[in-house]
Amino acid sequence: MKVRKFAISDASLERSPGQDGDIVVGNMVDQRHGGPITIGFGRYAQSQSLEETLVVDDVMVVLDGRLSVTNDGRTVTAGPGEIVYMPKGETVTIRSHEQGAVTAYVTYPHWQEAHEARTRGNR
Amino acid sequence: MKVRKFAISDASLERSPGQDGDIVVGNMVDQRHGGPITIGFGRYAQSQSLEETLVVDDVMVVLDGRLSVTNDGRTVTAGPGEIVYMPKGETVTIRSHEQGAVTAYVTYPHWQEAHEARTRGNR
Repeated sequence: MKVRKFAISDASLERSPGQDGDIVVGNMVDQRHGGPITIGFGRYAQSQSLEETLVVDDVMVVLDGRLSVTNDGRTVTAGPGEIVYMPKGETVTIRSHEQGAVTAYVTYPHWQEAHEARTRGNR
Repeated sequence: MKVRKFAISDASLERSPGQDGDIVVGNMVDQRHGGPITIGFGRYAQSQSLEETLVVDDVMVVLDGRLSVTNDGRTVTAGPGEIVYMPKGETVTIRSHEQGAVTAYVTYPHWQEAHEARTRGNR
């Protein structure tokens, strides 16, 4: 695979599995491309909330708006140009505010594969 | 390690090894923290250029300004909110323009360790 550039306008944004909020994500690079990491964009409508136990290391870069992430009783809030690192194994609640939010994300390893493995394990 | 938030104002930006341009980087998370990925911020002054063969998978998110990346005779240009994915093994030339650029980056595995291993191998 060669160097590639991505804009959010290139993304097919869809609701992520296991959540029913108005939060959509689109992978630009993932397990289909043969590399070790997943890269994508996310968009949160206003005042959404998502709780998740991370099955991968997940880095979010806030591109627009603002997100708060609560983990273990502590909350961090990130705005444009700021990074939130969510290590594998942590349980987080991600909340958007009045203006919603747009993010870029990178996960190691691929979050979709890890999700599917967890779902199979729960059956 | 718990969830953490980073702003570029938290970074200690230093010239990266092996380049003499006005390009500075600062890791916020790396091999010292026990996880699999390095996370950091970069700042390019105007009209800088850096050629590199990537020893890791490297994702840059442009936060401000504009960068062009040339790889294998093809150039992509990214502005604020856009992502450039540079796979391990590729040789790239990264160029900033009149306004310079600020980036967030994520690498897998840790770029500093991979650099040091390459440097030792070259001796």
